[in-house]
Amino acid sequence: MSHVPATRPLDYGAPISLEAAKRVMAAAEAEARANDWPMVIAIVDSGGHLVMLHSLDHAQHGSVVIAQEKARCAVNFKRTTKTFEDALAEGGFNLRILAAPGMMPLEGGLPLVADGKIVGAIGVSGMRSTQDGQVAEAGAKALQDGMADR
Amino acid sequence: MSHVPATRPLDYGAPISLEAAKRVMAAAEAEARANDWPMVIAIVDSGGHLVMLHSLDHAQHGSVVIAQEKARCAVNFKRTTKTFEDALAEGGFNLRILAAPGMMPLEGGLPLVADGKIVGAIGVSGMRSTQDGQVAEAGAKALQDGMADR
Amino acid sequence: MSHVPATRPLDYGAPISLEAAKRVMAAAEAEARANDWPMVIAIVDSGGHLVMLHSLDHAQHGSVVIAQEKARCAVNFKRTTKTFEDALAEGGFNLRILAAPGMMPLEGGLPLVADGKIVGAIGVSGMRSTQDGQVAEAGAKALQDGMADR
Amino acid sequence: MSHVPATRPLDYGAPISLEAAKRVMAAAEAEARANDWPMVIAIVDSGGHLVMLHSLDHAQHGSVVIAQEKARCAVNFKRTTKTFEDALAEGGFNLRILAAPGMMPLEGGLPLVADGKIVGAIGVSGMRSTQDGQVAEAGAKALQDGMADR
Repeated sequence: MSHVPATRPLDYGAPISLEAAKRVMAAAEAEARANDWPMVIAIVDSGGHLVMLHSLDHAQHGSVVIAQEKARCAVNFKRTTKTFEDALAEGGFNLRILAAPGMMPLEGGLPLVADGKIVGAIGVSGMRSTQDGQVAEAGAKALQDGMADR
Repeated sequence: MSHVPATRPLDYGAPISLEAAKRVMAAAEAEARANDWPMVIAIVDSGGHLVMLHSLDHAQHGSVVIAQEKARCAVNFKRTTKTFEDALAEGGFNLRILAAPGMMPLEGGLPLVADGKIVGAIGVSGMRSTQDGQVAEAGAKALQDGMADR
Repeated sequence: MSHVPATRPLDYGAPISLEAAKRVMAAAEAEARANDWPMVIAIVDSGGHLVMLHSLDHAQHGSVVIAQEKARCAVNFKRTTKTFEDALAEGGFNLRILAAPGMMPLEGGLPLVADGKIVGAIGVSGMRSTQDGQVAEAGAKALQDGMADR
Repeated sequence: MSHVPATRPLDYGAPISLEAAKRVMAAAEAEARANDWPMVIAIVDSGGHLVMLHSLDHAQHGSVVIAQEKARCAVNFKRTTKTFEDALAEGGFNLRILAAPGMMPLEGGLPLVADGKIVGAIGVSGMRSTQDGQVAEAGAKALQDGMADR
């Protein structure tokens, strides 16, 4: 299906360090604060294990789980959760995504890539999924910037 | 509905032996390697119990569960998972598939048949579902060839 | 039983803010780093919802769940998880703790108190439970110090 | 507590390759066959994801889950499952192990170590736990031998 890569996807790399995750988190948190969005931001490593989670004041409780599931989906399936959201919107047999364990068709989950490998993922939840995606992008971009600095 | 056979389906046979499962796995694995597809391949027996699972290097983590679910669906409902995928694509009341526990509408799950009985199933996950299906077919075919050899 | 307070326990207060949680986390993380202990540190609010989690590099994966469960237990039962550990060690009818959902008899979970109310809890996991407790104490103390500063 | 290392445990390494896992599996399977023990043998990677599972003919169904849980416990807590079994046998406050998510106090789970890092774990189930442990040892030893060959 269109949301599944026909070519070989990126390999997994070593798990993201807490230090690198902190840079991702700081950038995502800043983006959320700048917009006054009460969100939960989660970062998992390349094995899908939670490395960092910050819940901004007054974020809805349900987002604690959703943010983690978005991040886990992004790393477990090596693609953005928006890919699944878009595919689902096409309907037809893409509705099958709803039946697949771990596939989270809600924008806001992005793989975190360093040196061409997937080192983890970020998941954001709390506002509209496009807004969640905006904050996740801000986080993911910080990792790339940091990598360029080395 | 169209995806439910009107004629009596095959009976369950004895559980596939590990030896026979190894032949299925070898053929499926070879097909995946020939295409450089990082996949998870699972084989369950006629009772739905996992007999064999191989995860190729760098396969997406999420496929470990999906491959098993495809195989389990194929044996539990005595048909290919593509049957459910096709039915779901028709929409209408076939959407009910999404609410049915164990019905996995993703191509890549096939019953394994020997001597006219269902001895197990193979499930493959990791690439496009048509590619998953291609690898599952290669595995299932090996069992039939092997049976013919005896 | 001995581990249940005979006097009225503290009331729940407003959920701990992310800012206050960050002070708790910083102190706990510093204590863990000073000892080179790879740990997971979790902070939940007065409702038991995860507010913050940091996993130090190479912490055992299993601690991601255990740290959260310790924190959740401490806030849900308004006492330290060591209270349950000690009670369990007495045996006898205290074995019932093992059957009680959410009671986590492993040292390393502490309520976080501010202005005489429970605002959350900290849970630490990754080393010996006494070491986990030491790091949790360092975190909890930071909140009290911070409160005194205001 | 005695089963928790007071010193810093081994770090996680890259996930075990399918090729290395096959050597571990072959050695464990040979040991089980030599004794005519119907067992399930599971190998997970350093992230706890299932890499390989073989179920010998007539193994009890329940072992499919138990073997995986033993392997996952060994990698998630960076120690043998026998460590938890021994600790539990001491009673007293070690009974708390029964309440800790993911701690599996049944011999037969071992971390797989290569170049001083934990690359995965093997879990075996189907017979007495000492026999499960014997087969797991045979598998883990094959990895070390193989490493020496390089």
